[in-house]
Amino acid sequence: MSETVNQSILPYTAKINEDNHLEIGGCDTVELVERYGTPLIVYDEDSIRKCCSQYKNAFSSYDKTKVLFAGKAFMTKTICHIVQEEGLGIDVVSGGEIYTALKSSFKMENLYFNGNNKTLDELELALDSGIGRITVDNFMELAILDNIAKYHGKTVKILLRITPGIECHTHEYIQTGHLDSKFGFDLTQLDEAIELIKDEYTNLELVGLHAHIGSQIFETQVYHDLVGIMAEQFAYIKDKFDIELEEMNIGGGLGIRYTEGDDPPSIYQISEVIVNSLKENIKKYSINEPILIVEPGRSLVSASGVTLYTSGSYKQVPEGRKYVAVDGGMADNPRPSMYQADYKAMVANKAGNDPEEVVTIAGRFCESGDILIKDVKLPTVDPGDIVCLLSTGAYNYSMASNYNRVPRPACVLVHKGQSDVIIERETYENIISLDRIPKRLTSKTLEGSM
Amino acid sequence: MSETVNQSILPYTAKINEDNHLEIGGCDTVELVERYGTPLIVYDEDSIRKCCSQYKNAFSSYDKTKVLFAGKAFMTKTICHIVQEEGLGIDVVSGGEIYTALKSSFKMENLYFNGNNKTLDELELALDSGIGRITVDNFMELAILDNIAKYHGKTVKILLRITPGIECHTHEYIQTGHLDSKFGFDLTQLDEAIELIKDEYTNLELVGLHAHIGSQIFETQVYHDLVGIMAEQFAYIKDKFDIELEEMNIGGGLGIRYTEGDDPPSIYQISEVIVNSLKENIKKYSINEPILIVEPGRSLVSASGVTLYTSGSYKQVPEGRKYVAVDGGMADNPRPSMYQADYKAMVANKAGNDPEEVVTIAGRFCESGDILIKDVKLPTVDPGDIVCLLSTGAYNYSMASNYNRVPRPACVLVHKGQSDVIIERETYENIISLDRIPKRLTSKTLEGSM
Repeated sequence: MSETVNQSILPYTAKINEDNHLEIGGCDTVELVERYGTPLIVYDEDSIRKCCSQYKNAFSSYDKTKVLFAGKAFMTKTICHIVQEEGLGIDVVSGGEIYTALKSSFKMENLYFNGNNKTLDELELALDSGIGRITVDNFMELAILDNIAKYHGKTVKILLRITPGIECHTHEYIQTGHLDSKFGFDLTQLDEAIELIKDEYTNLELVGLHAHIGSQIFETQVYHDLVGIMAEQFAYIKDKFDIELEEMNIGGGLGIRYTEGDDPPSIYQISEVIVNSLKENIKKYSINEPILIVEPGRSLVSASGVTLYTSGSYKQVPEGRKYVAVDGGMADNPRPSMYQADYKAMVANKAGNDPEEVVTIAGRFCESGDILIKDVKLPTVDPGDIVCLLSTGAYNYSMASNYNRVPRPACVLVHKGQSDVIIERETYENIISLDRIPKRLTSKTLEGSM
Repeated sequence: MSETVNQSILPYTAKINEDNHLEIGGCDTVELVERYGTPLIVYDEDSIRKCCSQYKNAFSSYDKTKVLFAGKAFMTKTICHIVQEEGLGIDVVSGGEIYTALKSSFKMENLYFNGNNKTLDELELALDSGIGRITVDNFMELAILDNIAKYHGKTVKILLRITPGIECHTHEYIQTGHLDSKFGFDLTQLDEAIELIKDEYTNLELVGLHAHIGSQIFETQVYHDLVGIMAEQFAYIKDKFDIELEEMNIGGGLGIRYTEGDDPPSIYQISEVIVNSLKENIKKYSINEPILIVEPGRSLVSASGVTLYTSGSYKQVPEGRKYVAVDGGMADNPRPSMYQADYKAMVANKAGNDPEEVVTIAGRFCESGDILIKDVKLPTVDPGDIVCLLSTGAYNYSMASNYNRVPRPACVLVHKGQSDVIIERETYENIISLDRIPKRLTSKTLEGSM
């Protein structure tokens, strides 16, 4: 077993059962398919909870740590419920995510609201619902939020999002004076923002800074540096404005293992680097111990989820590839077409078989680019077999569309042999439910006056 | 005015009114925003109908032409209604698209069903609903479809999709012996398929061939060559199997002008090349005049649609870009992130103003890649201004997701000063409507037994 869940391609409870089927959470995936159909996204409850615990344990050496789940990876009422039970908060980025948390009885004080362009309605909703913190992204938002807060007679606790001049994507780590990003305040704009908060925006209370440096990150040094930059800002703000910031939110970004080629650090390794850097820098800059906030998204849910497809038709190109088509594709998993993302697959009903042929797993959507995995070695895939894509728990359902008017998959949660639907499969009726034909068009036809 | 709608960046009826606002279909876009909110996709009915007419006129020199709208570009009940009134059929690619046509009282005999991996349920639905033609993509589908047809005691008229060894994407035109594609029969597999249809699959009636060579195509030569290859196959099949095919479906792919840099041929230019090639090849191969079928998607609806966003916060990176954020982005228009697609924009409430500054239009989604247009010259964009992205009628709403749990936009149809909702704006309630929390989780919490 891998040290932490983000280092595993398979869910924690995955095994091959005596029928040679892939089993997750004590449920035979072939039986899940018989019961719920395909495409089906299966979430392993134990993996999610285990990963929550690993984050909490990993940061236990610094007891002022708060872990927030980055909802955009997979926001649904059940996940809100689970992460609340595990003692995590949630980082939300829209009114729809706030609404989802509200409707799952989430404690709103544990919600942190991020985003580069929150609308007025969303900020109103945030205030009305008693959200914990709002991370303000820019000058305009400062003005608007203070305005709303005054109108409601409330004081709002805010963090300022900064662009620390660090950006990291997997193997690329950029450090610059100014970061070319749509998000946050440039460090040179912080003084002005803080002066405005002190002098004019009296219904805003600045409690911390926020930064997020990228996603699917495999390095640890970058977090060490980020904490240093933030601590330096804490010291500067204390010195210049006599404000002792209480919250240091360093965002998320820890990578996961999609395929064997990926080698992310463990949650323990990353926490050690972060906590050590924080302790050093607290000393170095003589600042108070802040609350440390981390916002894992992908690493918290990705390995917990797998997508089951039914294999349908196939095509052998003469002197070329063998295409195996499944009953889903780019609409339920846009990551291969959008990010050229790699995935690993299994044949769930032949889980223990040796790989025998190289195939390309094609989606069902009418686009030649709808390919889920190019040239993957698998046991012979026959029509009707269950193809399982691994590590699809993050940024799959949350980014799913109705392209080609195909209903989005169902999601089930498995645990100790029990399975429960957490998102129902869409129906054709759902898909057309918002379609309207203007009366003037249909009445014209009835009159035959075209 | 451009010769045909696909050559225009703006909808046909677009103009700047006396308030200096962009007007479409006689409707002031600023008033549309006041009434319907943003993001809002506005479709110009006249442009859609005009484009349908242009296709029909352009091919009138060959009166056995059928024009099918490729639904995947923007499938909704109203579009079905309009294209039916204009005398077009529809090329559908899923059960959901068939269902949409059914529920808009579309004549099912004018529906053609395409796709590389149609499910059993979808084929059943197609047969039950009396669909016009099914384009069979592969050997397995032949077997399944014949089976279903036998069960229902029906004979099904089919086309075979072939990969003609031509593929074209805008400026790249590949011709090979075997095409590396997930779609269709390789030419070397046709004999076997036809023998199976003749000898075994007696409930299938082969009436034609289908090919589709790509999308956003700017060349005409490729269509000339395609018709030649298909005619050659028609002659070969007549000669070898004594089957006179009646339908030659050459697919779609005609490009549109997203920005000034794009220079697509007109619908008249493309039709001339196709019809001339067909007439030449009919003579050359001594075949009967087939029904010619074309399947425009993008070119039929893209220029008809524009997306209106409200400009929100902005950010000036010191010594860098100015980011202007709007209240939509990659979830309602994934094309810039998925295909690096370029778009043109206007400020709808300052429509006649000269460009004054170079800005980058950023979306609202929590991803640094969510940029709609990089470095576009526009009149000064102030918060609250209406930013209008042009040519968003195809592959925008149809590919839209609920990423970040943001509701999908509303779509309105405008015509002679009247506006009607054709797709309602999603609500937060819609978004969570399929979410479920398993009972065992909530009851556990009630018992406090965590």
